Amino acid sequence: METEIITDIHPALVGSLSKAAAAETIINFGPGPTSLPKEVERKIAESFDKPGLTSLALSHRAPEFQEILDHTISTTRRVMEIPDNYEVLFTHGGGHGQFAALPLNLCHNQSDIATYVVNGTWSARGRDEAQKYCCVETIDGSDPDTGKLTTFPELVETDINPESKYIYLCSNETVNGIELHRLPKLPDSRRHIPLVVDASSDFTSKPIDWLGSGVGVLFACASKNIGHPGLTMAVIRKDLLGKDKASPLCPGVFNYTTNSEAGNLWNTPATFNIEVVGFLMDWLEREGGVSANESRSIAKAHALYDVIDNSLGFYGTPIENKSLRSRMNIPFNINGGDEELTNKFLIESWEQGIVGLRTLTPFGVGDYLRASLYNGVTQENVSVLVDFMVRFAEENSSGR
Amino acid sequence: METEIITDIHPALVGSLSKAAAAETIINFGPGPTSLPKEVERKIAESFDKPGLTSLALSHRAPEFQEILDHTISTTRRVMEIPDNYEVLFTHGGGHGQFAALPLNLCHNQSDIATYVVNGTWSARGRDEAQKYCCVETIDGSDPDTGKLTTFPELVETDINPESKYIYLCSNETVNGIELHRLPKLPDSRRHIPLVVDASSDFTSKPIDWLGSGVGVLFACASKNIGHPGLTMAVIRKDLLGKDKASPLCPGVFNYTTNSEAGNLWNTPATFNIEVVGFLMDWLEREGGVSANESRSIAKAHALYDVIDNSLGFYGTPIENKSLRSRMNIPFNINGGDEELTNKFLIESWEQGIVGLRTLTPFGVGDYLRASLYNGVTQENVSVLVDFMVRFAEENSSGR
Ligand SMILES: Cc1ncc(COP(=O)(O)O)c(C=O)c1O
Ligand SMILES: Cc1ncc(COP(=O)(O)O)c(C=O)c1O
Repeated sequence: METEIITDIHPALVGSLSKAAAAETIINFGPGPTSLPKEVERKIAESFDKPGLTSLALSHRAPEFQEILDHTISTTRRVMEIPDNYEVLFTHGGGHGQFAALPLNLCHNQSDIATYVVNGTWSARGRDEAQKYCCVETIDGSDPDTGKLTTFPELVETDINPESKYIYLCSNETVNGIELHRLPKLPDSRRHIPLVVDASSDFTSKPIDWLGSGVGVLFACASKNIGHPGLTMAVIRKDLLGKDKASPLCPGVFNYTTNSEAGNLWNTPATFNIEVVGFLMDWLEREGGVSANESRSIAKAHALYDVIDNSLGFYGTPIENKSLRSRMNIPFNINGGDEELTNKFLIESWEQGIVGLRTLTPFGVGDYLRASLYNGVTQENVSVLVDFMVRFAEENSSGR
Repeated sequence: METEIITDIHPALVGSLSKAAAAETIINFGPGPTSLPKEVERKIAESFDKPGLTSLALSHRAPEFQEILDHTISTTRRVMEIPDNYEVLFTHGGGHGQFAALPLNLCHNQSDIATYVVNGTWSARGRDEAQKYCCVETIDGSDPDTGKLTTFPELVETDINPESKYIYLCSNETVNGIELHRLPKLPDSRRHIPLVVDASSDFTSKPIDWLGSGVGVLFACASKNIGHPGLTMAVIRKDLLGKDKASPLCPGVFNYTTNSEAGNLWNTPATFNIEVVGFLMDWLEREGGVSANESRSIAKAHALYDVIDNSLGFYGTPIENKSLRSRMNIPFNINGGDEELTNKFLIESWEQGIVGLRTLTPFGVGDYLRASLYNGVTQENVSVLVDFMVRFAEENSSGR
């Protein structure tokens, strides 16, 4: 009999599983949308408790919302050290929206060239969308022998068409667990090409060298590190803006230039979502800014990779090159992918209130469980998982 | 000296105006985003008060979110009596997003024809966006003598190209105050053409004869009657879906077909916003459904138009044809547009907690104030405005 595959189920729903009981505290390791830091969640709840209009009810043209918008942008600028020659925009459409918005803003003609580094699920999906709007040249990051996506290719001059309007990469491959802890430097002869970065799942977890890395556009859907779905942040170097720069095919809602000229109010922005991002940025600032956040991020990830690496093979993780291992999304399997033991692991972890380790996606459940360690996950939360994993390995290694 | 134009300011901010004081209760007549019914606002606040994960933190692939999604869709179907051969989709991008999504889904080729009825700000803006993606033919609804947008043109056979992929109209022109209380019937020889309706500002305020009116697509941004910004509902007749129907230029996030095939989860939807729409639909159902809501809507609008019509010209409203007067957005001026008196009116109304009557938009402040009577505004709220208007007219008519 085939083992039934158990996916992400929260404790409230697993009453039907004999051993499961609703846990007091839920620890959310989901890949996003997911929990925000407790302090931020409290701020959100409080905002519904005060008299007057909540930001759900504010006109986007009301002075009170303008204050919220200005606050969110200026705090983001400080926390992420965004230089003045970049514009901070809030757009609709999520990460997928930006997959289309990028070529539509940076390639005026469909014959324009863009170079995509494809080393995982999300860069591939970004590339596929771009092919509708420009001529894509791909730098293939898959292992030439195995075809697997477990590394990041070297960026060599000869692979980058100097005519490229931009060169695109995903700084953290959420599904594959590959992260660039620092943005790469392009070869000297290609440094004129703006770098476009999908930072959806690692934004705020480390400093960005905006100018030094030649960032042209960096975007992040809000639903992982900085907020909840319905909002995307896009940071654009101002020289890439301008009348008639975008493709005539660019939908108005995706046009960076007109939205920038309208001060983020070309259309109705996701007002409440913007306030939430502001709360998150306030929290980051109080907690010491982006460098302190990187230290926390490194510590959380290390704790988990240590258990895996010290498990004598009971736990496995696909990315061998430690300098590319994601600190945000940590894939791991159990006993080489033993499905029965994996289900046992999931059920017992739910009993500890640990949820979000396996999601059924259109790409399947994947070969690995995955612990996502975004801003909403604390070092203490990681310790609960780590302690559980150590115990589970001890209890279940005997039969091997 | 020119009179300074005062725009929408909420009481919290008008401390600097000598006569203003913060009102106890704010009554929000804003054109959107705006307040939801008190019971819905309470439901939202409560959802942050219960243990477990709020919908802000739920994965869009978690069973709990699937329940929220299913509930919102099925309640919407019941309340709005949506036939089975229509799909209910939630998309990003707001109303402006749909302006692009429509031609991109319904016109495979840029040479395809679409007919737009333009009788106000929003239908014009929808038409302008569509011109990027198809051949637009316009039925001009402006008054041939004055050029003003104060009516809705008759839809005659000879004005509608039989090859049109769709015929587009806005059922409530939010800025101009023109509403179709029932969708028009197309001439018999044009009944094969799907009707596309921008119902952003009147959705849920009256029944829709989906099949009888030949509705192909009807959309509504959430931020007026049904929720808050970051979400748009699109209801699509299923025969308009299908592989290769959309333009190859359609961004994935806007593609009705792939999103429908993926059960609204092709990309990360605005999870919390969808829950809020569900709360609103629950409320509507408890309050007697769409017909009861229409009765309330008629009563609220009548109360306001009555004051205007009985003011002996002190208040004016631009739409003379009463059967086209919007029940949702009621434009009015004071003493023929007297700016000094208008400012006095605004300041004194703020003292009553009445806000949202004038918004500074990219189209200017407009010649009229505007009271928007969405679901969040009760008959009692309207009475406060009506009483104030009657008193203000009495106190300020003397000098005329
Ligand atoms: C790196 C990355 N890019 C893009 C996306 C897509 O974002 P969305 O679902 O908001 O379209 C995701 C979603 O998980 C992601 O992880
Ligand atoms: C009738 C109508 N259509 C479309 C829109 C645009 O919606 P959004 O601002 O969400 O793009 C509005 C906004 O006021 C509207 O009233």
